[in-house]
Amino acid sequence: MQFHLNGFEPGDPEIVDPTERHSPPGASGTVPEEVDVLIVGCGPAGLTLAAQLAAFPDIKTCIVDQKAGRLLRGQADGIACRTMEMFHAFDFSERVLKEAYWVNETTFWKPDDTSCEKIVRSGRVQDVEDGLSEFPHVILNQARVHDFFLDHMRRSAAKLEPYYARRALEVRADATAAGADGSSRPVTVRLERLDPSHEGQIETVRARFVIGCDGARSTVRKSIGRVLHGDSANHAWGVMDVLAVTDFPDIRLKSLIQSSTEGSIIVIPREGGYLVRLYVELAALDVGERVSSRNVTVDDLIAKAQRILNPYTLEVKDIAWWSVYEIGQRLCDKFDDVPADETQTHLPRVFIAGDACHTHSPKAGQGMNVSMQDAFNLAWKLASVLRKQCAPRLLQTYSAERQAIAKELIDFDREWAAILASANSGEGDGFDPARTQNYFVRHGRYTAGTATQYRPSMITAEPRHQHLATGFVVGTRLHSAPVIRLADARPVHLGHAVKADGRWRIFAFAGAEDPTAARSAIHALCDFLAEDPDSPVRRYTPRAEDIDSVIDVRAVFQQGHRELAIEALPSFLLPQKGRYGLRDYEKIFCADLEDGRDIFKIRGIDREAGCMVVVRPDQYVAHVLPLSAHAQLAAFFDGFMLQRN
Amino acid sequence: MQFHLNGFEPGDPEIVDPTERHSPPGASGTVPEEVDVLIVGCGPAGLTLAAQLAAFPDIKTCIVDQKAGRLLRGQADGIACRTMEMFHAFDFSERVLKEAYWVNETTFWKPDDTSCEKIVRSGRVQDVEDGLSEFPHVILNQARVHDFFLDHMRRSAAKLEPYYARRALEVRADATAAGADGSSRPVTVRLERLDPSHEGQIETVRARFVIGCDGARSTVRKSIGRVLHGDSANHAWGVMDVLAVTDFPDIRLKSLIQSSTEGSIIVIPREGGYLVRLYVELAALDVGERVSSRNVTVDDLIAKAQRILNPYTLEVKDIAWWSVYEIGQRLCDKFDDVPADETQTHLPRVFIAGDACHTHSPKAGQGMNVSMQDAFNLAWKLASVLRKQCAPRLLQTYSAERQAIAKELIDFDREWAAILASANSGEGDGFDPARTQNYFVRHGRYTAGTATQYRPSMITAEPRHQHLATGFVVGTRLHSAPVIRLADARPVHLGHAVKADGRWRIFAFAGAEDPTAARSAIHALCDFLAEDPDSPVRRYTPRAEDIDSVIDVRAVFQQGHRELAIEALPSFLLPQKGRYGLRDYEKIFCADLEDGRDIFKIRGIDREAGCMVVVRPDQYVAHVLPLSAHAQLAAFFDGFMLQRN
Repeated sequence: MQFHLNGFEPGDPEIVDPTERHSPPGASGTVPEEVDVLIVGCGPAGLTLAAQLAAFPDIKTCIVDQKAGRLLRGQADGIACRTMEMFHAFDFSERVLKEAYWVNETTFWKPDDTSCEKIVRSGRVQDVEDGLSEFPHVILNQARVHDFFLDHMRRSAAKLEPYYARRALEVRADATAAGADGSSRPVTVRLERLDPSHEGQIETVRARFVIGCDGARSTVRKSIGRVLHGDSANHAWGVMDVLAVTDFPDIRLKSLIQSSTEGSIIVIPREGGYLVRLYVELAALDVGERVSSRNVTVDDLIAKAQRILNPYTLEVKDIAWWSVYEIGQRLCDKFDDVPADETQTHLPRVFIAGDACHTHSPKAGQGMNVSMQDAFNLAWKLASVLRKQCAPRLLQTYSAERQAIAKELIDFDREWAAILASANSGEGDGFDPARTQNYFVRHGRYTAGTATQYRPSMITAEPRHQHLATGFVVGTRLHSAPVIRLADARPVHLGHAVKADGRWRIFAFAGAEDPTAARSAIHALCDFLAEDPDSPVRRYTPRAEDIDSVIDVRAVFQQGHRELAIEALPSFLLPQKGRYGLRDYEKIFCADLEDGRDIFKIRGIDREAGCMVVVRPDQYVAHVLPLSAHAQLAAFFDGFMLQRN
Repeated sequence: MQFHLNGFEPGDPEIVDPTERHSPPGASGTVPEEVDVLIVGCGPAGLTLAAQLAAFPDIKTCIVDQKAGRLLRGQADGIACRTMEMFHAFDFSERVLKEAYWVNETTFWKPDDTSCEKIVRSGRVQDVEDGLSEFPHVILNQARVHDFFLDHMRRSAAKLEPYYARRALEVRADATAAGADGSSRPVTVRLERLDPSHEGQIETVRARFVIGCDGARSTVRKSIGRVLHGDSANHAWGVMDVLAVTDFPDIRLKSLIQSSTEGSIIVIPREGGYLVRLYVELAALDVGERVSSRNVTVDDLIAKAQRILNPYTLEVKDIAWWSVYEIGQRLCDKFDDVPADETQTHLPRVFIAGDACHTHSPKAGQGMNVSMQDAFNLAWKLASVLRKQCAPRLLQTYSAERQAIAKELIDFDREWAAILASANSGEGDGFDPARTQNYFVRHGRYTAGTATQYRPSMITAEPRHQHLATGFVVGTRLHSAPVIRLADARPVHLGHAVKADGRWRIFAFAGAEDPTAARSAIHALCDFLAEDPDSPVRRYTPRAEDIDSVIDVRAVFQQGHRELAIEALPSFLLPQKGRYGLRDYEKIFCADLEDGRDIFKIRGIDREAGCMVVVRPDQYVAHVLPLSAHAQLAAFFDGFMLQRN
């Protein structure tokens, strides 16, 4: 898709006339007085939370933001492969794929050895290693990501719209209120209206849970006494989204450019074919100095970019957005309101996510991605507790899991920022293009977001049976692979069965024996799941709901799909659902036997024994088990789920 | 995507609550009195026409339909690969891919040799041969296809909405009016309003052109004195879209089932994972008999289906839509209002498209597809003439091209219907599963819609240089192939550069010489196109418009994309566009050198010489020429284009 040719225009580029790119103005009226969940902030973290909770009409969610309406331009733009996988779970990955710039290769530029006032290309690498994800690394204005989440919320069962122009003044959690079983609303939040006709009016909301997604200056964070610790910010950068004419040949490639004396630029091509983002290095700051004190103008940024790009020209025609910033690597020690020494006695009521609990430089393209993953981690847990599927102590795992990940991110970002900091910054070893390229390649999995690994907890098992599926690493996100759906012979991705619907999944990979035999391990597992009183499917699924509404069981077979008769498989794999008892034909898959696509081979599944892979609602592998480990499977779910009915 | 579990619900399934699936009610107010184009009928043909014309805000288009609003259920559902290619040009293929059922394999069932009252599977074939198209064959409710076109129209520059509840009463073309150069509105159409508050009111529209897309009983067709000729209908079928529980194992595969004495069924699985369409053969009709006289009920259809499916059970739970029909193969001899012997003296003013000029059985899944291709063929021609880009005689090619294709379709359909007609139909040789399967496979290209080949005409050259690109057959649709876009190293499909924007394309495939050399054939071609007074790009592009606004030139190189320096290529391939003179970086491609993806190899392009491939606005190959054939290229466009400025 090509757009923005005659100037940046916000909104859906498929609507030709920019004045027709309307979007609902947000919720009208006053904020409800009582809710289950109050989300403060409509950035990537807040919207991910809201979009996930919107799937549950029995949860009353409210999301507020101090801005007057939806975001239209600027801010983050990097979307990692892992985030695309999550977007697929939210059913809008195809919209992003269509509209975004795809980062296919990254180039590196350095001063010419023989004429150091000029830059020359020093390297060129594939941006994402083959097979790391079925999705590409893409770049798209954060505002459009917001739009997709807002559309999703609007279309969902709970039909959520944000309340704009609300500033959180105060968050007060009543520690003496009833437990976190959802029976009370112990958190009180005071909001000030900022919209002209109601300016200054105060609304008070009582919530069971409050989540602060309100950015680096988070009011919610302050209210729970948490502090961002870390480096002072001494690297200042400018960023601008521009339409420009240049003869720099890599203007449509992500490029890391280092000049000899003028500093560095990162070129991030953008959606629509014309727009480009330039990160321009500014001078190092003094200790405690804010970049705002330097009164940098966009003309300064342009002039600096022009000097760095020498001998190439850059003629900026239109500026869609620009900013200067300094960001250190800073982190909260805990992401909720329970002190570390009280986790056994208190349950969290207030959480923080995204920039509210970790800040870092934007140049690794991680910020928006990590924030959304924070929210995706928390949202299903909140839903499970509110819906009385899971024990409230599950909520302790949010801070435990995400704070550790944020810590890794901060460490990574500090290293990467140091590498990108130029020789003239006064610290570090100076820019080394070979070292930069090498680091970039080595850390590709990290920047793609696929390196995240949660440690063992009540919802992530110790990897005792990892050898049964070496490519489905416990604690990491389910690395999808191609399969053929048996009933309709359609090539699909197994991981795409995991939607953002709060459900757990068990993928049963059949072993070498005849799976149609009544005594096969897959039959035995299905019998256990369908009939045994200890079966987690039986124990945790309310009688009135479909059999797959809490735990969705699917099976994958080794043989080609023409070799397996669907009618010979356990009927548990063709469950009858809904008011008519219609059969669901989308639970059974076969390996794609085309070269290089056999899931058993590329994910290292034990062909002889088969295995079970348990996947969390946020797409992470919770457990790998032998097919026969019925009791272990039951024990795992018993560790955090609540029996229903 | 899974939906319709608890009953069929019309509209966008991504909106969870069916009552929120609103769609604009259509245009309000009265139909304009004067338009450029009046389209009668909001079926697939009418909407394709309207969607294409909506790209041009300088053309005043009006589309009317006698229904009270948009279609919600029923009718056609087969979407051929070729149609998906066209949907991509209209920018909504990804929505269809997401929502539709994909036809991956087709199975064949016949009476069991040893127990003929039971059916057994006799064969199973891949539905579409490998490499035939980059898109699959899919199945989706026609109503959703309408929705996508309506969305496209709404978002387009001309922002079209249909006027519903208008019945065309009379179409009168004034033969003495000024010529077809667009300077007059010689066609007068009287419409009767059917909406309750305006019932019976007459609106009169004067149009430059009128297109009858008003179905088999077309008023427009009758008004121009054309008649459908052909077989009387003696095969009656029933069709029903149902939610059912069955143990028939292939219920999620397209299946052609023949019982020994009860007739045949065609199973067409449908979108959402649960819905299925069943075509059920009814008894043969007497000559002149209408199926309506038999008073067939849906219970009759169900009972018959149950008997045919023996030994399998079928329990119908919900009926979304059903119908009985008899359709013969019928065809008009010409698709416009100019008698065959007056084409030299008269220009067409009234056209017919889709079922208005050809009817056939639905079982080859061709009707909707061919109707849309009719419209796609006509729409750009109308736009070109109205915008004074092309000579009005271009319009004669519509009937010439599409009537010939319809004739082929009718012949194919007659043969296919005869094969599907069962032994007990009283005619033909009886059903032969092997013969059916064989025929099905042989004619795969036909049913995929990719076999269409237009004969030489002013817009389709004689294939004198076909050997330069044996895989881009003159007169057939551009068979896309993968390439790498040079500027951003992105793998794309070359054919996806052809959007439904009324533009012509020239794809220049470079030969073996160094393309960066100033004397290379590709440089010489670019110089000619950019500077020569005879250049069709110079001659036919208005000075005020972007250089690619009439003819869009793109180049494809043999070498890997890392081996070619974009800055060494002709600047004509990086045209500066729009108000800022921004460079368009999406004109240059390289072969994808991965195994089996090299466009030069898989489309048989002469590596030594290279070639030019000229592609029409409707994606058909118009010409293959040597790179040096500048004069021939100019002469081709001179044959139908009008000089501008």
